[in-house]
Amino acid sequence: MVRAIRKRKPKFIVPASGPPVSELRQDLVTGEWVAIAQGRAKRPEAFIRQDRVTIQTSKRDCPLEDVQASGNAFPVLTYTKHDNPTDWSLQVIPNKYPAFTHHGTCGTVWNEGPFEVRDGHGFHEVIITRDHERHIALLSREEVSEVIRAYRARYLALKEDQCLKYIALFHNHGPSAGASLPHPHSQLIAIPVLPPDIQRSLRGSNFYFRKYGKCVHCVMNRWERTDKKRIVFENDLFIAFCPFVSRNAFEVRIFPKKHEAYFYTITDSAITQLADTLRTSLHKLYEVLKNPDYNFFIHTAPLGAKKYSTYHWHIEIVPKTATWAGFELSTGIHLVTIDPKDAAAHLRKAR
Amino acid sequence: MVRAIRKRKPKFIVPASGPPVSELRQDLVTGEWVAIAQGRAKRPEAFIRQDRVTIQTSKRDCPLEDVQASGNAFPVLTYTKHDNPTDWSLQVIPNKYPAFTHHGTCGTVWNEGPFEVRDGHGFHEVIITRDHERHIALLSREEVSEVIRAYRARYLALKEDQCLKYIALFHNHGPSAGASLPHPHSQLIAIPVLPPDIQRSLRGSNFYFRKYGKCVHCVMNRWERTDKKRIVFENDLFIAFCPFVSRNAFEVRIFPKKHEAYFYTITDSAITQLADTLRTSLHKLYEVLKNPDYNFFIHTAPLGAKKYSTYHWHIEIVPKTATWAGFELSTGIHLVTIDPKDAAAHLRKAR
Repeated sequence: MVRAIRKRKPKFIVPASGPPVSELRQDLVTGEWVAIAQGRAKRPEAFIRQDRVTIQTSKRDCPLEDVQASGNAFPVLTYTKHDNPTDWSLQVIPNKYPAFTHHGTCGTVWNEGPFEVRDGHGFHEVIITRDHERHIALLSREEVSEVIRAYRARYLALKEDQCLKYIALFHNHGPSAGASLPHPHSQLIAIPVLPPDIQRSLRGSNFYFRKYGKCVHCVMNRWERTDKKRIVFENDLFIAFCPFVSRNAFEVRIFPKKHEAYFYTITDSAITQLADTLRTSLHKLYEVLKNPDYNFFIHTAPLGAKKYSTYHWHIEIVPKTATWAGFELSTGIHLVTIDPKDAAAHLRKAR
Repeated sequence: MVRAIRKRKPKFIVPASGPPVSELRQDLVTGEWVAIAQGRAKRPEAFIRQDRVTIQTSKRDCPLEDVQASGNAFPVLTYTKHDNPTDWSLQVIPNKYPAFTHHGTCGTVWNEGPFEVRDGHGFHEVIITRDHERHIALLSREEVSEVIRAYRARYLALKEDQCLKYIALFHNHGPSAGASLPHPHSQLIAIPVLPPDIQRSLRGSNFYFRKYGKCVHCVMNRWERTDKKRIVFENDLFIAFCPFVSRNAFEVRIFPKKHEAYFYTITDSAITQLADTLRTSLHKLYEVLKNPDYNFFIHTAPLGAKKYSTYHWHIEIVPKTATWAGFELSTGIHLVTIDPKDAAAHLRKAR
């Protein structure tokens, strides 16, 4: 049986970006979601391992240089230099190959056998900085502030869509971190379900608050600031450290010192301090690990009317320092081969 | 405060394999564990990305050819050909660089700040087949049966250690799947905590059973057998299919058709049929994806007195067909770019 997820049209209407390109399927055992691409019956050759991930490196052929001339849609947000509209410093475009599309409705939900399936309603955008070479570790504080302002602006615009449950903001740097293009860019993926990782964190934060009357992240941050061993950088508003329970060697997390559940509430002055914390952390990783591939992403309380005040938003930076193998895949337990305090000591010493 | 985890000595005593090499730290938010290597303050150079993962490829220099002459310990299990003790076909050795060690006690547990930490008590073994080149997809049914018999034998031996909660059995094939040596080998890692992934599956299986009075895996398997679209291979006792809620392109799962929570209860005749199912599935992946890197692992109900009869053990085969990037890492939602029914159709056609 196919049924509409929500009868009335969502509050935030943008032109439909095409038919569903993916569907979300719910795992019957764990309740977790996966997104399966629809309809494109790919040839198996597309999945054959290449000895080295090849990505487009030439600036001349880069589709993110002359963005629209390369067949990309017009930007949904542009920041310009010197008030010259053609001299852009940052633009946000709809992804040419989106993982999720929006259709002016929230889509449908149906059953296949014992499973629940729903249209992959959502948004997939790309946040592009102008320079082909200089990635975030090498940008100025002002340039990184602009990137974070763009994250906030697009978050605020899309959060009005009442079909959405979560907006993921992330950045992939380098082929082994899944970046398909070398030109620095972040991505925004907005989805109509609560991601399992976020759900677990929300549940844990809530449980701790009910038990101890405190935010679990505030407790950990306070301890890190007292213990000092794992701190990488801090300023008035933010702290960056290698977490005691790190899931990856040289992983760094950035927290606002003040308790705040929602990323989008960040103020302009806090953005400047966050930019400084983010670029300093990335630059230290760049120095110590010699320009590693990495992912970073924002974890924030989800959308919707329900308030998640016990959560504490933050950024996680995950350099690609190891391969997850059978043990990690089968248990979910990560083997980390450096003590976070030793990783932090190396990072503190670097610029 | 440091306290012993269990006062009396564990029932199964083997010579201690050295001091703790790792500690398990519990995440304060999610309750999940990570294992952090202790004491070895590594130089950051050890974590610098290499453009191509280099592994030892020459048979002459392979430390798994003349196993003990390469400085490995004596085997804890050996299978020989023609009753000639020097002509081994399979051996199981303690890992030379273990992630977990055992000390004749269950170790200690202590607090650091708000966190709980415990010694990484456990076992780490390597299951080696004789031939340097022929990996499991290319072995005979009898040879694969021997590998599974070794899994069962070591599982049965170690399950008597009362400090252990779970025994992970897995196989990494190829550098991008985390295999550090090309000589085919599986690994066993036995640990004193319940892995988060297993805990979630147990909880989900149990929840479904309480709600519907049925094993959730039996329900899914029955539907796959009716729907037929995603079946890769089956025989009397086992079924291999690309799951409807697949987390990876070309992922294959193998289930015993009869409900059984514990892998170690497998009979000799079932081992032969499992061997056939496993090697056929791997050979089909080998043909369609041209010798892909992959991991496979066994998921089984955990150790201990508590019975987990609602669980259903199985094998998951995960070929490395994509890179998990920022979206997967930040949400736990996987983007799979082929419909499992299309992947299964390709695999069914292959030998």
